[in-house]
This record gives sequence, structure tokens and C-alpha cells, in this order.
Amino acid sequence: MVETPRRQQIEDAASALFRERGYAATSVRDIAQALNLQGGSLYAHMASKEDVLWSIVSRAADRFNAEVAPLAASDAPAPYRLREMIRAHVAVVTSAQKDAAVFLHEWRFLSTDRREQMAARRRAYEALFRKAIAEGIETGVFSMVDVRMTAMAVLSALNGIAIWYRPEGAQSADEIADSYADLFLQALHEPHFMTRTIT
Amino acid sequence: MVETPRRQQIEDAASALFRERGYAATSVRDIAQALNLQGGSLYAHMASKEDVLWSIVSRAADRFNAEVAPLAASDAPAPYRLREMIRAHVAVVTSAQKDAAVFLHEWRFLSTDRREQMAARRRAYEALFRKAIAEGIETGVFSMVDVRMTAMAVLSALNGIAIWYRPEGAQSADEIADSYADLFLQALHEPHFMTRTIT
Repeated sequence: MVETPRRQQIEDAASALFRERGYAATSVRDIAQALNLQGGSLYAHMASKEDVLWSIVSRAADRFNAEVAPLAASDAPAPYRLREMIRAHVAVVTSAQKDAAVFLHEWRFLSTDRREQMAARRRAYEALFRKAIAEGIETGVFSMVDVRMTAMAVLSALNGIAIWYRPEGAQSADEIADSYADLFLQALHEPHFMTRTIT
Repeated sequence: MVETPRRQQIEDAASALFRERGYAATSVRDIAQALNLQGGSLYAHMASKEDVLWSIVSRAADRFNAEVAPLAASDAPAPYRLREMIRAHVAVVTSAQKDAAVFLHEWRFLSTDRREQMAARRRAYEALFRKAIAEGIETGVFSMVDVRMTAMAVLSALNGIAIWYRPEGAQSADEIADSYADLFLQALHEPHFMTRTIT
């Protein structure tokens, strides 16, 4: 199916509704109404409601990957790299908030095949964070944390921003990103390093 | 409505289904089938599907509050208190995982009045974490973080455990709780304190 402006309008309207009401509670008719269209006319642009969910979830996954994977592949030291990855992830969560929320909370409604494809993409994405944390431990700049749990803690915290972030709020997206990066870089800081150089 | 063993069975079955499929995608008939009952016979024990959601969300909120509020009210130093609060929150997330997941992800399907009641309870609960963090900053044992954002980061990370935790997994619930507590206590550690006492 060719991507058209109309198709994009449908995805944007569906993303807002899926985020607000949840995928299961949103009908094709609801999406049509949000666009002032007849429900039936939407089927010229989409095969099914699940097809639209797949597009939204895929474009969110593409976006996270496009922003974060190049940073993860850089040869910058692990703390610098992880900071940039956190900032990029928060930038996607805050600038594509509806898609990010649908990606995070509604993807389980995908059909089995697509859900498995997306689960594999999510695991690969999480692995980028695990790799940065593991390399920081190996090079002695991060403390000996559990890599998997720490990556989950970081990503869960960052993804939580999709729930409470308001563009008109007191903190800008950049300020939030910096605060979260500071928090987790401090959390990973090797505390004995300083002590060892002093004693 | 009096709490009965049957009512509790209904809530437990509904909690599992709401968590797995989402509230909107679960019918009263689905709940009845999970209990080998006729859909209609459930209405002797519940007024509506939303009524059961309210019970599940309320009992989860009661549980979080019962475990965490007494610790939050203690006069232990902030780092010690926050550690115990994190441990208690993780204990609820891991031991009442289904209810916790429904509490965290399905509560938005409550009717407006109940949703507002629950939002107020959630804010009061989040305030317990903000208070511990703020007191740690005031007493100079935590660094000058943004209190609100840090509380959200901690709670989002802890709540993420409800998604990935498996009782049969490699780490016990206690080990996970300790790892998360270590991570956030390290994140909040006043880094200049050590430097100041040395120089």
C-alpha cells in the first residue's frame, strides 16, 4: 500500500485515539469520525485497524532506531555514548509522543507474526543500551551493575516520560533529557574509582 | 457489595485477563469462561465490568499504600527510608504482579469519577517518594536533583518491573529490589560531599 497524505492523516488520527482510549476501545468508525470521513471510505487507504497499528508502531520503532543506533555505533567512551543515547531516546519520546505511547503500550494488540517481529526489534534496540552499559563496566568507568536490569531500569524510566510529558510543562524536553542522563550517569559512576585514586 | 470468595475469584480471573488482553478487549463473558461460569451468573457478584476493574485497581492501591506509607512516615534518614520504600514497592509489583499491571496500565478505563479518585491517590503516593528525595537533598545526603522528575524516574523504572518480571527468572524479587535500590541510591548520592571532606 502506497503511503499517501491521506494514509498519514489516518495514522496520525489513529495514533491519537489509540493513545487516548487504547487500541481495543477504538473503532475504525472512531478514526473516520476524527477525520470527518465515512468509516467505509477508510478502507481505500488501510486493510484493517491492525494494519494502521502496525504502521504506527513500525514508524515509532524506525524513529527510535534511526536516532539511537548511529550513536550506539560510535566509538565514543561509554559514558558519553550512553548520555547521547538517553538524550536521543527522550527526544523521540517527547517529539513523537503519541506514536511512542502507542509503540510502548498498544503493540501487544498486533497479530502474532507482527508482534513477534516487533518483539525482536525491541530486543535489538534494548541490546544497544546493554552494550553501552557493558562496555562502560569493562573499561572501568561504570560500576559493576547488572547490565540487563540496569538497561531495563533506564528504558522504563525514559519511556515513563511518554505518559507524563506535557509540551507546555515547566521543563523543556532537553532539560528532561539532561536530568535523566545526569541521574543515570551518576547511578553508573564507579564509586570506588575516586576513592582508589585518593587512598 | 460484600466481598465473597466468588467475588475474589472473579477479580483474580479478571485481573489476569485485563493484564493479558487489556480491559477494553476483555468481555464479561471472557471472565465467566475463565471461571467455567455463565456470563449472566456473574452479575450476582458484580454490577459491571468497570466495577471489577475498580476493585482490582483499589486493592492494588491499598496494597502499595499499606506497604510503603509506614516506611515513608518513619524518621529514618532519607537514604535508608527511600531504600526501604523502593524495596517495598518492588515487593508489591512482583508479588501482586497482575493487579499491579492492571493498576498501572488499565486504570484509565475507570469511569470519570473513579479515575479522578484514583489519580488523587496516585499523586499522594508519588508524593511519598518526592518527600523522601526532598528531605535527602535538604539534609545534604542527596545531590540537588529535580525532585519531581527523579520521583517519576524511580517509579517508572520500578513499575516497568511489572512488565518483564518472571517469578521463574534468574533473579529473585529481592535481588531485583536491591539492584534497583542500589542504582537509585547511587544516582542520588551527593558527589561533592566526598570531595569536600577530602580537599
